[in-house]
Amino acid sequence: MSAIPPRLARRGFLAGALGWGGGALAGEAPLQVPVWTREQGAPVATPGYGQPSPFERLARKPRTPPPFPGAASSGTPLQHLHGIVTPNGLHFERHHAGVPGIDPDQHRLVVHGLVERPLILTMNDIVRLPALSRLHFLECSGNTPAWQRANPNWTVQDTHGLLSCAEWTGVPLATLLDEVGLRPGAAWILAEGADGAAMSRSIPLAAALDGAILAYAQNGERLRPEQGYPLRLFLPGLEGNLSIKWLRRLKVGDQPFQTREETSKYTDLMPDGTARQFSLVMEAKSVITSPSAGHHLREPGFYEIAGLAWSGRGRITAVDVSADGGATWRPAVLQEPVLPRCLVRFRLPWEWDGGPALLQSRATDETGYRQPPRNSLVEARGVNSLYHYNGIYGWQVAAGGSVRHVA
Amino acid sequence: MSAIPPRLARRGFLAGALGWGGGALAGEAPLQVPVWTREQGAPVATPGYGQPSPFERLARKPRTPPPFPGAASSGTPLQHLHGIVTPNGLHFERHHAGVPGIDPDQHRLVVHGLVERPLILTMNDIVRLPALSRLHFLECSGNTPAWQRANPNWTVQDTHGLLSCAEWTGVPLATLLDEVGLRPGAAWILAEGADGAAMSRSIPLAAALDGAILAYAQNGERLRPEQGYPLRLFLPGLEGNLSIKWLRRLKVGDQPFQTREETSKYTDLMPDGTARQFSLVMEAKSVITSPSAGHHLREPGFYEIAGLAWSGRGRITAVDVSADGGATWRPAVLQEPVLPRCLVRFRLPWEWDGGPALLQSRATDETGYRQPPRNSLVEARGVNSLYHYNGIYGWQVAAGGSVRHVA
Repeated sequence: MSAIPPRLARRGFLAGALGWGGGALAGEAPLQVPVWTREQGAPVATPGYGQPSPFERLARKPRTPPPFPGAASSGTPLQHLHGIVTPNGLHFERHHAGVPGIDPDQHRLVVHGLVERPLILTMNDIVRLPALSRLHFLECSGNTPAWQRANPNWTVQDTHGLLSCAEWTGVPLATLLDEVGLRPGAAWILAEGADGAAMSRSIPLAAALDGAILAYAQNGERLRPEQGYPLRLFLPGLEGNLSIKWLRRLKVGDQPFQTREETSKYTDLMPDGTARQFSLVMEAKSVITSPSAGHHLREPGFYEIAGLAWSGRGRITAVDVSADGGATWRPAVLQEPVLPRCLVRFRLPWEWDGGPALLQSRATDETGYRQPPRNSLVEARGVNSLYHYNGIYGWQVAAGGSVRHVA
Repeated sequence: MSAIPPRLARRGFLAGALGWGGGALAGEAPLQVPVWTREQGAPVATPGYGQPSPFERLARKPRTPPPFPGAASSGTPLQHLHGIVTPNGLHFERHHAGVPGIDPDQHRLVVHGLVERPLILTMNDIVRLPALSRLHFLECSGNTPAWQRANPNWTVQDTHGLLSCAEWTGVPLATLLDEVGLRPGAAWILAEGADGAAMSRSIPLAAALDGAILAYAQNGERLRPEQGYPLRLFLPGLEGNLSIKWLRRLKVGDQPFQTREETSKYTDLMPDGTARQFSLVMEAKSVITSPSAGHHLREPGFYEIAGLAWSGRGRITAVDVSADGGATWRPAVLQEPVLPRCLVRFRLPWEWDGGPALLQSRATDETGYRQPPRNSLVEARGVNSLYHYNGIYGWQVAAGGSVRHVA
């Protein structure tokens, strides 16, 4: 599937899109030769690990203030990124006691509990095992803090930036569990991190056998420290907090372990005062990243609406886009490859007439589930939750071309 | 398709793979708590652009000595990478006059020659156009300098490291050509870079219309300086030199422009003294990255043979692996997704008996073309070429477990 709808592949539209400094070429006059073409450039970088251009200033944005030191997060600048891969230097962070500086030679993974052969593994043991690589999104369940009214000054980095996507490489957890041998009654697995918070969560056995990876690499290289170096659990499609970083222990049990992070935290307070617990799957969701808050449309004419869609339940099958606040919807083009439990880039051509426009997107996944409008989401779950907000999100383009969020 | 062959998913193989420090867990004694679990970790990185762990020392390796200042290259450390995505900091480099420091606001792209509407475009013009993203490999045609006997001390970084893979985002060249309008006789396009070498190559029109991208982003972020920031031409499947970096000019003509880089350079000297010119497609090729030269097998037992395969003509359909110098071959598992003109990770379980073993791989692509053995490649093309070596490549595992190349 081409990302360029046929209706765009015609003469003339570009002329309308241009005019910000470029334009028609005056005859065949000699072209100006810039200074950097008249001199020798810089040699290959030493040490040989490259960095972005000094003209680029992309950075993760810490959410302040953190509730206490080390309990911080920083979001990916989705409004400035392209495609589906997040460069490792911009993958979002969420820590509960800061980033430990782990020596991989001293790191151990213990597997015990309801298993026939408890094991201690070194990193050398783990990287020697059969591996696999998968492109998957990772999203914090606290992404999009919009149960209460969202701050109209927030950018998509503020509202959706606890979302990234990478190629994760490691050992299938199923391989290790098969090796240690599950004992009767095995139903849940405690995963514990080696950070100062000893972050711990209970993983349903079914989820542990559904594509879970003992990950030691992201986008080709070893994990970054803030992503769990040297080893993290990666659970495709589930809330990010379950993908325990700096993984040091897996204990198999017959019931959930009821850790602090799954009782007082990471539960969803419902209108009747009860709390949803173990609501682990990240449901289908999408957001327009361009244009979005902070962007400015300089003049009427052609623009490409682009964004990201994802579902913890499998593949995205459709994304619809509205430019009139939901009165009418058009299907966007989904950028191939469309992979399960992975970000999908969607695109739609748009002619801006210069007047007010409310841009929204809604995703549908292969289970038939469609991303809900805010009102039906709030009707079902109230406004007291902190997690799992996946409602349709809107950007208001004002007559002058400025863009900001409206609820 | 699982990357783990069924024969591996059985109890017992792991016990054979282990024993380098890990092993059985002694009862349920309390686990040692490492120092980094007893203290607060580091806060989120500021500025918010992350870096690898200080325990990791991966770097591109410059090929020395360069023929003259600025005419340098540095290879990707394939023996230490995983999956198919190359992190931007480790994508191979090849420059002919160093890396220019281009101000994107001052950069222009000129399109002229046999076109109806010559244009000058700013970067703002270009990024506003309909875009697409594609995962593609990029390989220098000078990769694998093995027409003469290869140096037995070379690692896969030395022999195959001018190969990387990224998600490239930009404007389809076809969109721009459709807009400026080709005049009768248009058959070739001159692409010129803004570097000190004004690197220039002639692109056949058919290739320019076959997935060529005016690329401004790689793996989500803007191009790195050494990859052509702010704009490069990206031609999927063709020799890397054609994907002109720091792109400043496209001139449409009715015949090749016979630039220096396609007459004296980047041609293939044949046994009869003639030279192949415009041999642009990178044919099917593969290489085992683990185990490979510099690795050391500590003991007999289970190992996973892993490597990369790619073809400039489309998808890889099969990779066969031999552990006995080509006497017998076994089909490797191809890691999904298998994308056209993209790296494919292949894997095969292997039991090393502790004796000498010669590991080789051969790739087949969707055209039916199979990577040739060295002798048939040399028979057809002699040993005087510098470019387009895609012969089957071998790693000799010695009885002691050391690994090095043998021709």
